[in-house]
Amino acid sequence: MAFERYGTMKVNDKGHLEIGGVDTLKLAESYGTPLYVYDVALIRERARGFKKTFEELGVKAQVAYASKAFSAIAIYQLMAEEGMSLDVVSGGELYTAIEAGYPKERIHFHGNNKTREELVMALDYEIGCIVLDNFYEIELLTELLRNRKQKIAVLVRVTPGIEAHTHDYILTGQDDSKFGFGLTNGQAEEAIRQVLAASDAFDLIGLHCHIGSQIFETTGFVMAAHRIMEQLVTWHESLGFDSKVLNLGGGFGVRYTEEDKPLEPAEYVRQIVAEIKKVADGHGLAVPEIWIEPGRSLVGEAGTTLYQAGSRKEVPGVRQYLAVDGGMNDNIRPALYEAHYEAVLARRPLDKPEETISLAGKCCESGDMLIWDLPLPKAAAGDYLAVFCTGAYGYAMASNYNRIPRPAVVFVENGEAKLVIKRESYADLIQNDLALN
Amino acid sequence: MAFERYGTMKVNDKGHLEIGGVDTLKLAESYGTPLYVYDVALIRERARGFKKTFEELGVKAQVAYASKAFSAIAIYQLMAEEGMSLDVVSGGELYTAIEAGYPKERIHFHGNNKTREELVMALDYEIGCIVLDNFYEIELLTELLRNRKQKIAVLVRVTPGIEAHTHDYILTGQDDSKFGFGLTNGQAEEAIRQVLAASDAFDLIGLHCHIGSQIFETTGFVMAAHRIMEQLVTWHESLGFDSKVLNLGGGFGVRYTEEDKPLEPAEYVRQIVAEIKKVADGHGLAVPEIWIEPGRSLVGEAGTTLYQAGSRKEVPGVRQYLAVDGGMNDNIRPALYEAHYEAVLARRPLDKPEETISLAGKCCESGDMLIWDLPLPKAAAGDYLAVFCTGAYGYAMASNYNRIPRPAVVFVENGEAKLVIKRESYADLIQNDLALN
Repeated sequence: MAFERYGTMKVNDKGHLEIGGVDTLKLAESYGTPLYVYDVALIRERARGFKKTFEELGVKAQVAYASKAFSAIAIYQLMAEEGMSLDVVSGGELYTAIEAGYPKERIHFHGNNKTREELVMALDYEIGCIVLDNFYEIELLTELLRNRKQKIAVLVRVTPGIEAHTHDYILTGQDDSKFGFGLTNGQAEEAIRQVLAASDAFDLIGLHCHIGSQIFETTGFVMAAHRIMEQLVTWHESLGFDSKVLNLGGGFGVRYTEEDKPLEPAEYVRQIVAEIKKVADGHGLAVPEIWIEPGRSLVGEAGTTLYQAGSRKEVPGVRQYLAVDGGMNDNIRPALYEAHYEAVLARRPLDKPEETISLAGKCCESGDMLIWDLPLPKAAAGDYLAVFCTGAYGYAMASNYNRIPRPAVVFVENGEAKLVIKRESYADLIQNDLALN
Repeated sequence: MAFERYGTMKVNDKGHLEIGGVDTLKLAESYGTPLYVYDVALIRERARGFKKTFEELGVKAQVAYASKAFSAIAIYQLMAEEGMSLDVVSGGELYTAIEAGYPKERIHFHGNNKTREELVMALDYEIGCIVLDNFYEIELLTELLRNRKQKIAVLVRVTPGIEAHTHDYILTGQDDSKFGFGLTNGQAEEAIRQVLAASDAFDLIGLHCHIGSQIFETTGFVMAAHRIMEQLVTWHESLGFDSKVLNLGGGFGVRYTEEDKPLEPAEYVRQIVAEIKKVADGHGLAVPEIWIEPGRSLVGEAGTTLYQAGSRKEVPGVRQYLAVDGGMNDNIRPALYEAHYEAVLARRPLDKPEETISLAGKCCESGDMLIWDLPLPKAAAGDYLAVFCTGAYGYAMASNYNRIPRPAVVFVENGEAKLVIKRESYADLIQNDLALN
């Protein structure tokens, strides 16, 4: 029976929640809990969806997985299989990509403060491009590249001065952001001049911008595309600069709860492409290659966390707390962003709610609550809960707070489960500890 | 020259910030950055201060380090040296304590959802006591203890119904908290009856309560002490129950910035003891042994994080961003709790501020800001910054977000530095990763 949630989820003949053709109760029993489960088919579907839309529109494109959402050897290998490019934001992500055998020419390096060591790593590996974020970085890279007699492709990250206000977008003179070069205050133009002047070191292939996260409409993207394209018309004249690539970043929203109404991923692409084509055609400019950087929208809905219920506490007339065996250590988003999630009992996801519980984590902190006021059938200790849409910024932000080992991660597809990150052991927790005397 | 900040900090003859007699620039150069530096003498002073106050007041007491603030082999060994007891809240913390050789009889186990495996661990190690948090736990432990024919000392955690409202405390009928048994709704009494009835399994030595965190006055503690003592008078009559131990938890505030005005740790103890004695004497009860659980107040101010500055970004007329080589991965408190910190340049902590900068982390997330609007002498790439009061809930909550390795930790004392946690390597980051195919 279909189960209208995400991807391949269904309810099997035992009435249990199944993902990727695998019974979630079996997963919990085989691998223990908490457990991150990824629906590989859904990830592939999303990746292919973005690529296909560009193909249908006849536009040259790269779709880069913004891997800070979930970075691991296995997810990188999956993205490589799907022909994605890869965004990394640190030496650690770059190292992981290299260890995963990621095609180096498809790796893009982001970040507001890449260190000298990280830049050297990127140059050693001859990755696809570096996204320049600030003048210090241009200076540092120029020096490194000249000494190495090496040249690298770069994008210049600009801040287009677009502020999202819930459902409104406002054009501002500048973004008060730690990232990028202001488009309207002259910083972006100065950066481009410097990079063009250092043409022995840099191959300036284009511009980058990123307007925000978890966005449910296309207005902001269209405004950013318009603004940058208009600027490119000017720079074509004044600097003789043509941007081969226009990277419009990520931020495509996902459905954490039923209240979230994201667009089809393809819809973002269509509108962005339409706007870019319109301005280009209107001014006789070539349509640039378009890059986007989905992270959350590739992996967010594909992830489900399985927990086992333990203790219960009633505050009479106020609340029923039900505690699980994980919490803010494996998913800090409820505490950090007041993020909302939904959950079901894995054994009987279709059963009618009988009570409202508040799902508590096991960390010794009042703020460690996963879901407030969750309607649920009567659950008891030992029951497994499936919390949906935890695939992005869940495992990636996990900590050992309270010295709780980080969960295992399994990929499921076509009835098969594959362990892709082992559960941390207690011994792992102290492996870098040294004795006092 | 003395430097009016924390503990042994001073400015040495080179003008550099020194902690524990060690030049912080030397630390940064020897161990790299980001680096957590702990002032061991300050930790000892705080630990001894709590113990001494109880001794002076002639009260039997245990001071238990609430180790979720910072859990590691070395800090446990230091606390053991100082005769502290130890609070653990998970199997991981218990494992760490055992590996550190902590005296088992001084280990107390807390938590709202201790798993069966964790409870078995605690029983196997025959630790000092378990703090019972809910009826499920009583049931589970009763079963385990009877099967094992084992008996263990327990406290019952009660919620006294005291809400902190900034500077006011309000008595409520109950706490809407995931922790403990309600004192006024009959849950606490029912828990005590169950535990007393299972006297083959439990040695009920007393009660526990914890009213909150980062508290700057004594009112709440005095109210809690009063309320529980009044209840004990009743239970002495009705249940024949005498609480040998009264554990009033932690929550003693520290000075993150100059705006925080914590009391001397001794002051909390004096007022708590006075109130308990008053009620006990007034009703002819014996004064119970008093336990407290400082965490933050033992290690918070003793910790300093050293970072190296990198890029800078000006948003003209708005803000100067200065980015460092760490951020929300090593200290999530600014993002999670809007926590405020202060910082100086390690090379010249006494120099007059010349500008106001906002200290950005290196994570690829707009929210990764460590300090907003920090007055600082003109700083350039390569300069070291010392961020104060990061000793509690800093390293403990550190993650590998953006796949950034967690920092190293050094203890400094009497001019000597000792590495107590090694910096994570890139190889560490992928040690539990498995290939997709």
